[in-house]
Amino acid sequence: MTAVFEPFDVVDVRFPTSREHDGSDAMNPDPDYSAAYVVVRTSAGESGAGFVFTIGRGNEVAASAIRAVERLVVGLDVEETLADMGAFWRLIVHDSQLRWLGPEKGVVHMAIGAVVNAVWDLYAKREGKPLWQLLGELTPEQLVALIDFRHLSDALTPAEALEILTRGAAGKDARVAALLADGYPAYTTSAGWLGYSDAKVELLVKEALADGFTHLKLKVGADADDDERRLEMVRSLVGPDVLLSIDANQAWDVGEAIDTIGRLAPYGLYWVEEPTSPDDVAGHRAIAQAVAPVRVATGEHVANRVVFKQLLAAGAIDVCQIDACRVAGVNENVAILVLAAKYGVPVCPHAGGVGLCEVVQHLAMFDLVAVSGSTQNRWIEFVDHLHEHFVVPARVQGGRYLAPTLPGSGAELLPTTLIDYRYPDGVVWSDPQSTDPHPQGR
Amino acid sequence: MTAVFEPFDVVDVRFPTSREHDGSDAMNPDPDYSAAYVVVRTSAGESGAGFVFTIGRGNEVAASAIRAVERLVVGLDVEETLADMGAFWRLIVHDSQLRWLGPEKGVVHMAIGAVVNAVWDLYAKREGKPLWQLLGELTPEQLVALIDFRHLSDALTPAEALEILTRGAAGKDARVAALLADGYPAYTTSAGWLGYSDAKVELLVKEALADGFTHLKLKVGADADDDERRLEMVRSLVGPDVLLSIDANQAWDVGEAIDTIGRLAPYGLYWVEEPTSPDDVAGHRAIAQAVAPVRVATGEHVANRVVFKQLLAAGAIDVCQIDACRVAGVNENVAILVLAAKYGVPVCPHAGGVGLCEVVQHLAMFDLVAVSGSTQNRWIEFVDHLHEHFVVPARVQGGRYLAPTLPGSGAELLPTTLIDYRYPDGVVWSDPQSTDPHPQGR
Repeated sequence: MTAVFEPFDVVDVRFPTSREHDGSDAMNPDPDYSAAYVVVRTSAGESGAGFVFTIGRGNEVAASAIRAVERLVVGLDVEETLADMGAFWRLIVHDSQLRWLGPEKGVVHMAIGAVVNAVWDLYAKREGKPLWQLLGELTPEQLVALIDFRHLSDALTPAEALEILTRGAAGKDARVAALLADGYPAYTTSAGWLGYSDAKVELLVKEALADGFTHLKLKVGADADDDERRLEMVRSLVGPDVLLSIDANQAWDVGEAIDTIGRLAPYGLYWVEEPTSPDDVAGHRAIAQAVAPVRVATGEHVANRVVFKQLLAAGAIDVCQIDACRVAGVNENVAILVLAAKYGVPVCPHAGGVGLCEVVQHLAMFDLVAVSGSTQNRWIEFVDHLHEHFVVPARVQGGRYLAPTLPGSGAELLPTTLIDYRYPDGVVWSDPQSTDPHPQGR
Repeated sequence: MTAVFEPFDVVDVRFPTSREHDGSDAMNPDPDYSAAYVVVRTSAGESGAGFVFTIGRGNEVAASAIRAVERLVVGLDVEETLADMGAFWRLIVHDSQLRWLGPEKGVVHMAIGAVVNAVWDLYAKREGKPLWQLLGELTPEQLVALIDFRHLSDALTPAEALEILTRGAAGKDARVAALLADGYPAYTTSAGWLGYSDAKVELLVKEALADGFTHLKLKVGADADDDERRLEMVRSLVGPDVLLSIDANQAWDVGEAIDTIGRLAPYGLYWVEEPTSPDDVAGHRAIAQAVAPVRVATGEHVANRVVFKQLLAAGAIDVCQIDACRVAGVNENVAILVLAAKYGVPVCPHAGGVGLCEVVQHLAMFDLVAVSGSTQNRWIEFVDHLHEHFVVPARVQGGRYLAPTLPGSGAELLPTTLIDYRYPDGVVWSDPQSTDPHPQGR
């Protein structure tokens, strides 16, 4: 008897991060980092985990969307699914009734991403490999078969993708060895949340330098005077050689972005992130042209590969910030990595939140091993929050991510976390006076 | 005591339209037209209706999203809300935690649209006016206050919007009188669904001509040979003077769109609708440049005003197809109408489905009365499905919408419909052998 997919476990998990202003920025003053968490299971007893990352309210809507996707997956043959993950992706992304709810954007697309990632987690665990290695060992032909070229072919054809991936595979073994030995560069956002006091920022900046980071990011966008003051303070703390980037979290209109970045540029900016609406390709291009040589970065809220295609083809971004959980999972991110390689734009993943570091590191390491072949001008974001809740937490030492060696994608949460942080009935939420049973590691 | 908003009624209503292939197109072979329906209520006993339109699966996700929005609305002061609908819009659209789930796109944004529209329905009923008239009687200053200019100001400033609306108000009374006397032009899609046989199409085309329509639309995109055959048949039935448009429902890539439209153009095309992904501004522009003088139309799946801004500013569309229920309701559609006026692009609303004709006609009539001032090269889509379920059904005679004169937005469903079509426990769904208690009117 062949194994089939069985009903999912879906859990609404929320962390009370707003109590400490962790994660506060110009658009998001009080996030409660949350996951609409899914475990896919098979009749053979295998399982894999994935999630939609949210910042609190509405996490239950994402959970509802995962349930809507579940109906398309339960009963599918596991072997056939894993043997053609491209077909599996198209099956659930192009379900016409669910597609109407995006199309290919918003809650439903993110829920599909959670399910796709969960199946990849299962696949990697079955193969006994970390996800980056499983992907890195696929042939260029197998990788091309993961990509849906619908609405991409004016910018990227299967033949071009094959050429890029064939070129990307050359010298792979040496890069795997270097990755295992040296890890992958990281930058940190831990010091620069808007809600933190100057004293706390100063302490955290010094910690970050002591920890070996050479690239830090600050949140800006609520008040230009305050942004300038903080940036001046941090620049004086870190000296001229440490890279500083800023993140406006979409707070500005186009003209306002250009003006404010111009004002902040003298303090030395590596990139400016999300200067305006993530849907505004033309706006990003206008900003990029006006503020060069400051680089424009975006991606964590870019809905899908069609918008990435335009941002990359138009020269609207200098840094491509993939997110593990915004688009429809591993397959769509493979498409975006190949597009970024075609246009010569470095990929610096968005992470932080809950679990984003754990999962997205695999995609950056795969990019290094099999697509771009480089870590030059590339860093994975690191935020030191909530890693202790994961079975295989991300590990950063000396300002570098260590390559995961355990099987899977990194998405699996600890059983105790799923009980204590479940919303609204876990102890953290049902008893607001409770002490957080697993306070953050830092 | 001032009145406040009370908890919503939310109903998952679905119609089994797939049983007759009504609404079938290249991307949507088997839609069950559905509404995640909301009634907002006040402590003073007033109410208003709105909905998210979906095509079946996932309607419950939209209902869940409406519940997430509900928590932001219950308890708000009704007078204060109606007195500043711009502030109300920003309050719920910019809630940071819900915004993360879009941002401003997909299920959450559509749910916000349902709630915004429901409050406008309540407002219009309180004033005893049809929505088009309520909006048409607002001053240019009041209309500008409805618009959120965030992420728009590079294309449209408040001062420009005021100028456009001040110009648009001139001669308003005469246009209201003409609208009440003559109605608003319609085009029909009823004849051209992909799933219909040639014999059925022929019958419906002849009916449409007899009913006074001079502009018909056919679905294309599944198979170019079949598209050409059907188009040739319909052109020979209608003669050279009736306008024919085609709708590919996003089926094509950019190059494929250009090739296929070129092949079909000799049969005389007024516009080609949704030739490719609604997110692809650059793709639409490339298609529009290649296929002119055939016009490119899109909008029913355009997520928000930022994407419309780009489509209009780039000259990527020749026809702007607003949808009453895709963006965040009346306020965002007012912004889009003003943008379209700025760039001189005619607005031809998307309708059909369930209730879209009922609601969107108010926006087109408001555009005529107070924004563009014209019906030239403008038609509202009409599909003769499911109108009998509405308290104030859309009325089309002689190929023209008659202006509604009863109070409200048109969104209110009949009480019996809410019982019989409720999913999954209404009789239509709980007893699959049941005869549809309210078969379609036609």
